[in-house]
Amino acid sequence: MKRKLELAKMFVGTADSCADIQYLCGFRTPDPVVLLVHGRKKVLVVCSMEVVRAAREAARGTEVTTPEALGISKARIRRVSEWAGAVAAQMGVRTIEVSGLCPVGIVRAVEKKGIRVKVAATPLVPQRQVKTEAEIAKIRQSQHAAVAAMRAARELIGKSRPDSRGILRIGRSILTSERVRSLILRVLLDHHCTGKGTIVGCGRNTADPHWEGSGPLRAGEPIVMDIFPQNMQHGYWGDLTRTVVRGAVPQELMGQYRAVCAAQRAALKAVRAGVTAATVHNAAVRELEHRGYTTSHGKKGPSGFIHSTGHGVGLEIHEAPLVAATPARLRKGNVITIEPGLYYPDTGGIRMEDTVAVTDTGWRHLARCETALEL
Amino acid sequence: MKRKLELAKMFVGTADSCADIQYLCGFRTPDPVVLLVHGRKKVLVVCSMEVVRAAREAARGTEVTTPEALGISKARIRRVSEWAGAVAAQMGVRTIEVSGLCPVGIVRAVEKKGIRVKVAATPLVPQRQVKTEAEIAKIRQSQHAAVAAMRAARELIGKSRPDSRGILRIGRSILTSERVRSLILRVLLDHHCTGKGTIVGCGRNTADPHWEGSGPLRAGEPIVMDIFPQNMQHGYWGDLTRTVVRGAVPQELMGQYRAVCAAQRAALKAVRAGVTAATVHNAAVRELEHRGYTTSHGKKGPSGFIHSTGHGVGLEIHEAPLVAATPARLRKGNVITIEPGLYYPDTGGIRMEDTVAVTDTGWRHLARCETALEL
Repeated sequence: MKRKLELAKMFVGTADSCADIQYLCGFRTPDPVVLLVHGRKKVLVVCSMEVVRAAREAARGTEVTTPEALGISKARIRRVSEWAGAVAAQMGVRTIEVSGLCPVGIVRAVEKKGIRVKVAATPLVPQRQVKTEAEIAKIRQSQHAAVAAMRAARELIGKSRPDSRGILRIGRSILTSERVRSLILRVLLDHHCTGKGTIVGCGRNTADPHWEGSGPLRAGEPIVMDIFPQNMQHGYWGDLTRTVVRGAVPQELMGQYRAVCAAQRAALKAVRAGVTAATVHNAAVRELEHRGYTTSHGKKGPSGFIHSTGHGVGLEIHEAPLVAATPARLRKGNVITIEPGLYYPDTGGIRMEDTVAVTDTGWRHLARCETALEL
Repeated sequence: MKRKLELAKMFVGTADSCADIQYLCGFRTPDPVVLLVHGRKKVLVVCSMEVVRAAREAARGTEVTTPEALGISKARIRRVSEWAGAVAAQMGVRTIEVSGLCPVGIVRAVEKKGIRVKVAATPLVPQRQVKTEAEIAKIRQSQHAAVAAMRAARELIGKSRPDSRGILRIGRSILTSERVRSLILRVLLDHHCTGKGTIVGCGRNTADPHWEGSGPLRAGEPIVMDIFPQNMQHGYWGDLTRTVVRGAVPQELMGQYRAVCAAQRAALKAVRAGVTAATVHNAAVRELEHRGYTTSHGKKGPSGFIHSTGHGVGLEIHEAPLVAATPARLRKGNVITIEPGLYYPDTGGIRMEDTVAVTDTGWRHLARCETALEL
């Protein structure tokens, strides 16, 4: 199929909303830009204010232009949809391909110029899924930051003592989700990373994997910490989750923890170039089921292993390949998380997550981190 | 015009990509959701994993549902475009209105269900532009964080000494953009804010208003600091810029600084409910031109006052109303930046930015910050 060579592709967005743009031409900006790729030709449209920096920072071979140079009238100069229509028309393409995430306003403006717009069903830049060694090194930097932050958090929680009500305290002050998160963010900052969205949840509410957590931490309850730092310089992410319990671990939680660890080992054992995502996901599912942990949807919400086993990590925190019950095959150079979890409304959640690079024969850790549950 | 009462509106995205969703139903999530608003009815579609938290956190009157409940098959359950099509079909709407930023994949899926999709040319939730006192209080929190960080940065730069080459040093170590930025981010963290994208630029490259800055700071050159924190708890932003010079200020820069301050005063003098954005913008433009500072586009890029006077601030860092040469009228409760600047490739940039709330008779500061150029 030669479609990839024939169709022009259009990308519109900011560094945060469209990682393909940075990947393809190296330019990162907080304001939206338009990138049109046709064969070997790459044209980047930026506002005139950014043209000097774009010319300096964009990869060689990228032609940088402005809405003014495209002949857009002053009244419409701020409309990125106009830039898109004008650059497509100027390059004389008849059909362009865009991602399903492309803003509809852009697509309508391009169509008005008589250009057909095809919405791709699969990632427009599939090569992003296969990381170079240089990219893996960047993801490793963020993963190291996550590990350093996790260690600091484990140490702080380990130093706490439960009061008579089971609330964890450091000296006299209550140890809260907020305080642990603040420490984590501080360590991430030392590693030039942001940590927006960091999860430090405790108790039953951790049965929701996305609950960020708030309030006092308690002894004998699961504390789920999910740290996903983005390096502020190069934009690559890392992703790491650990669950800990301060003090004696209830038997039920210990059973869930052991099952999740076993599921993670089983999934990792299945990882190598050439296997399907489903093979990896099902290895985790089977291990949990084998130990009697079922997944269902009850009155209090879903329970069991209620998400996929993992996802790709790179310039986006969640990118392809998804590690779920899908037929997509892993490839050497994929960087993926393996993060099985068990979530029960009555006990809370347990999740263990590492980020690994897929190799021909298996995988390698990007950074190792302690796994013990009990602190 | 009754269109707003008649047409159903659809919103698709995450808390970061579609602020309207949080505004309309109070739910913030890292994963994409679909919100359909039809008259007083609001239906929020979230993945089953999030349904418990969504039901807990979403505003009263929001009906929370899942792709499973909408009857989507297991094979398609992860496709948010399927959610959108299914919920629109279930509600029996014939036409929906979306923002131009809505992903085209969503629109195509809805159209496949025989539903017409109208792309709005103006903001779908214009009431977001008029902030309540509670919202202004949240923006003020972020603005206070920006002021605290700016003060810390000014203090650090003020303590530095130039070496024989004019490079600023604290003790023996070189004072860099990175070090000042790191301090700023740390102070923002103390205020529960992120500061991704913080600008600390020095020298000629500050002629590009978006250059984040790197490397040693120097005496006698403009240091532009643009701090725009987002509160991690409620998501509202602040925005503040100051330009400083360590040591003696070159005459040319002092002239530019005085002109920019005068332009800011002139623009602020024009601000009040009922005036057009153009009135405010032109007040700044005229003041700069009156002082002989022209705007043009030369070989080294654009120079002069090369951006608009300001923008709205709220759940997005850049939102309506834009303060530029447009006929839109300011309203009481708008929160806007006033941030004229002058940028010349040979000397660098000067920008002064404050965030203010528009009142019937003028405006009020959200937080005051020192303006002196010389440190």
